[in-house]
Amino acid sequence: MESQFINRYISFLYRCGQCFFKKNFLQLGLMEINPGLLPVLMQIYRHPGISQDCISKNAGIDKGTTARAVKQLQSIGWATRCCDSQDRRINRVYPTGEALKHHDRVMQSITNLHDILYQGFSKEEIDESMRLIRRMKDNISRYLDMEK
Amino acid sequence: MESQFINRYISFLYRCGQCFFKKNFLQLGLMEINPGLLPVLMQIYRHPGISQDCISKNAGIDKGTTARAVKQLQSIGWATRCCDSQDRRINRVYPTGEALKHHDRVMQSITNLHDILYQGFSKEEIDESMRLIRRMKDNISRYLDMEK
Repeated sequence: MESQFINRYISFLYRCGQCFFKKNFLQLGLMEINPGLLPVLMQIYRHPGISQDCISKNAGIDKGTTARAVKQLQSIGWATRCCDSQDRRINRVYPTGEALKHHDRVMQSITNLHDILYQGFSKEEIDESMRLIRRMKDNISRYLDMEK
Repeated sequence: MESQFINRYISFLYRCGQCFFKKNFLQLGLMEINPGLLPVLMQIYRHPGISQDCISKNAGIDKGTTARAVKQLQSIGWATRCCDSQDRRINRVYPTGEALKHHDRVMQSITNLHDILYQGFSKEEIDESMRLIRRMKDNISRYLDMEK
């Protein structure tokens, strides 16, 4: 069974990814941002005005960590936060002009990582990898939702 | 291209795995250990007497983080550390009797996670997932080694 423990490689890839972004962000002149903020940043790039709760759910991050990441993004001037006009309990987060200015370089860095990860992969192998890992993600999401 | 960004799911699975272990360790009565120590703990289970440098390399963790994890494992009585008898610059790390006592429950928790991740997967799909992710791991390891 141990030979089928994929979590070991998932954790390894995660840590290597963090290490890659740390260096690559600097190489691309992205001095302000650290890799830990990437999941939250990507959520607000994709869905400007997304609620903090949705960020947590989409990125698989607990609420406290999301709140801290949003605060950090605010402190470097990459995010603004405001209450929903209908329901003041909902915090909505938007990318600032500063964040949007760096969007292409952030995406470039993510593309750079994938150029390395997928070296020697055919289009079909990339698609198959995505399909398989998405199923694992759905399985664990469903489990953790039930556990709540 | 964005639809092929697997790193997003790798990070998501990593975070969900941490969350799963946090709860499951408690359920299994593993109070002392936190999920962040798992990669280092697994290395010393697999290779008793492994050097700290090898732990870093095998687990994809920087030396400082490895040193801190080893210290934490020592502080809860799960690891002992001593200098290599031939080369005193090398720190060798061993699991203690206490760590070995908990080995089966740690492995049970890892098995529990994989039972969830692989729900609905055939044997062939598990093998294929392992093959593909191992190739990504080899690609990024090679790149980060060259960068050093």
